[in-house]
Amino acid sequence: MNNNKPQTLKGFRDFLPETMTVRNYVKNLFIETFENFGFEPLETPTLEYASTLMGKYGDEGEKLVYMFDDKGGRRVGLRYDLTVPTAKVLAMYPEIPIPFKRYQLQNVWRADNTQKGRYREILQCDIDTFGTSSPVADAEIIAVIYTALKKLDFKKFSIRINSRTVLKNILLQSGITNNQNSTLQSLDKFQKIGEDGVRKELKEKDFSQLQIDSLFKYVKVAKPDKNLAAVFTAIKSFNLPDWCYAFDPTMVRGLDYYTGTIFETYVEEPKIGSITGGGRYDTLIKTLGGPDIPAVGTTLGLDRIVDCIIELNLLPKLAKTKVKIMVGNFGPETEKESLELTSLLRQNNIATIFYPDADKIGKQFKYASIKNIPFVALIGSDEAINKVVTLKDMTTGEQKTLTQNEIVKSMLK
Amino acid sequence: MNNNKPQTLKGFRDFLPETMTVRNYVKNLFIETFENFGFEPLETPTLEYASTLMGKYGDEGEKLVYMFDDKGGRRVGLRYDLTVPTAKVLAMYPEIPIPFKRYQLQNVWRADNTQKGRYREILQCDIDTFGTSSPVADAEIIAVIYTALKKLDFKKFSIRINSRTVLKNILLQSGITNNQNSTLQSLDKFQKIGEDGVRKELKEKDFSQLQIDSLFKYVKVAKPDKNLAAVFTAIKSFNLPDWCYAFDPTMVRGLDYYTGTIFETYVEEPKIGSITGGGRYDTLIKTLGGPDIPAVGTTLGLDRIVDCIIELNLLPKLAKTKVKIMVGNFGPETEKESLELTSLLRQNNIATIFYPDADKIGKQFKYASIKNIPFVALIGSDEAINKVVTLKDMTTGEQKTLTQNEIVKSMLK
Repeated sequence: MNNNKPQTLKGFRDFLPETMTVRNYVKNLFIETFENFGFEPLETPTLEYASTLMGKYGDEGEKLVYMFDDKGGRRVGLRYDLTVPTAKVLAMYPEIPIPFKRYQLQNVWRADNTQKGRYREILQCDIDTFGTSSPVADAEIIAVIYTALKKLDFKKFSIRINSRTVLKNILLQSGITNNQNSTLQSLDKFQKIGEDGVRKELKEKDFSQLQIDSLFKYVKVAKPDKNLAAVFTAIKSFNLPDWCYAFDPTMVRGLDYYTGTIFETYVEEPKIGSITGGGRYDTLIKTLGGPDIPAVGTTLGLDRIVDCIIELNLLPKLAKTKVKIMVGNFGPETEKESLELTSLLRQNNIATIFYPDADKIGKQFKYASIKNIPFVALIGSDEAINKVVTLKDMTTGEQKTLTQNEIVKSMLK
Repeated sequence: MNNNKPQTLKGFRDFLPETMTVRNYVKNLFIETFENFGFEPLETPTLEYASTLMGKYGDEGEKLVYMFDDKGGRRVGLRYDLTVPTAKVLAMYPEIPIPFKRYQLQNVWRADNTQKGRYREILQCDIDTFGTSSPVADAEIIAVIYTALKKLDFKKFSIRINSRTVLKNILLQSGITNNQNSTLQSLDKFQKIGEDGVRKELKEKDFSQLQIDSLFKYVKVAKPDKNLAAVFTAIKSFNLPDWCYAFDPTMVRGLDYYTGTIFETYVEEPKIGSITGGGRYDTLIKTLGGPDIPAVGTTLGLDRIVDCIIELNLLPKLAKTKVKIMVGNFGPETEKESLELTSLLRQNNIATIFYPDADKIGKQFKYASIKNIPFVALIGSDEAINKVVTLKDMTTGEQKTLTQNEIVKSMLK
């Protein structure tokens, strides 16, 4: 019927069970943390009117939106981020109680050039608080990041915190009134290319030596302003340890819609860049067609975080499968007993596979082994007569004879 | 920047937190059940090559696929179901151990005409076992359906079971050799329009009186054949009670790719039709470009099931929000104490909102009330001095004075 060799589109991924197990572990831990902090779930459609998406991401961004005409002739596009759809929701449903704390874990699509670690379909994980200017809301987002990474067993990370108003003040003090964005773009490379690199780049951009010297003078003495100081106070009240966060007056972030606090999380090992990024954006929701309400939030980079925990071996106790035991198959004579054992295990919430065919026992063991199932239970005719079960530990190879209830007990341990 | 009134595309839905809470409850219960039965998660891309999707759904189906040219000029389409992508996965990754038991909860898209209860973006919930012909695998799918519906507290439902081979045999005995599909299409309406209705329709289709009489004669004496009998035996071994399933020789199912056992679940209240549907399809995976392996599975209709449990009031204990308590805000003087209480509650896994602004206390109570948050904790200056907290039960209006630790204890009850 179809002779094409099937293939997955470039930049898209199939997630087989073993990968899904790791991704679901991280996702569920995120959700648990978000809900603990009072964030609530939101989901919005995959497709939106082009008019909802266009004029929101800048010329460069807009080129990357998957856009097409649907069968009704409507110009539609695939969700490009989670902020624009939320602005739409806030505009459409004025009955939503404010402040609105929502988390959203949904895919976004970018018609980007593919390269290593860059995909066209990405699971985006966002938390945002809409409708409050309180510095506590900023601190709370940072507390969520800390809590989630701790739960994931990260030992070392650094949440760098700065503020757009602090940066503005540095520019003002340095006497840089033109090309402010260009200055900040260079300053943002401080972590990557160092002070010398930034100085060189600014010189090439025709800034005067006086301006450049002045910039670094004020960067070095910069302190959190009143609002950012209040954020730091709240972070302390949330009991975050000192080692995990720091004021970083060189941190700028690429997107220019932030109005206040900005923050990013870095890990040094592996060299993967930032794993979270966010900040306060008090004018964006109105700009996007929503109500005039302030907002603060962050994205957590699921793909990078998954890469980190695999590379840092932070999954020591996470089994490759949730299946705890396989019940083998000796054919019709003992099928009834085998299925009863299967049911008994499942009734006790022990994830169980019944091997459906009476294949050679070696093939059945091989299947359990490839699938990393830790135990195999067997009921042959001898076992059926004696009302017992042979239990094989697939890790040690050890075999035991137990009753059905003893099997359940040993699995629940 | 954008003056269009934002709107959601017809046939697409925004899911606000209260709706998401119900949907997530059902989804998580499905996943828990699937994993208990040894099914493992799979996810595939939203977009596939048109060649992967085309020629798979028949002319009618293909008209409903969202299809477009991407920026690289590739003809691509949005996922239309979860079976075709799985066939692709089985073809692409021959290393997947067989039998392969996977569950898949992902959206599918249909460029359908919209009408009540019919959407263009649907969350599809599928379980399937690939690579075994064992009747136990068929029975196991039925056992999953029973277990999931029981966990959802459904009191009455009927899993109707039939087989394509039983139907073929009825046709053979009735002497109907031509227009077999047309006959079955009419027979499938038996539950809706009764024997008289089906007889009338067949007459209009020019079947002879002898053929029609003969059809009903053999339908009435039909019994499960050997394979279907083995399915019923396995269902019994899985301990399903008699009331929830039945042999129904008039049940056909619309799609014509089934080769063996077929099953659907009906509820009489509310009148919503079938809430699950599936069966055995032993040749389809090869037809779709995958390996030549048998398969059996079902779809669970999340939208209809959610509608049912809301209508049948099966969510008595499901809170409208996971937030257990809100900590109110009396301003900067007691912010530290309030945030410490917030942190303490969260450390004890109690989902907590800190109200971020020092608004009038009436406004804060109103917020908690609209959001269905059951308790509000308040630390004013008196409470801060005395190291206590005022706890208000939002249901009864009752107020108590407690220590921070007593608040935690009372929330954990």
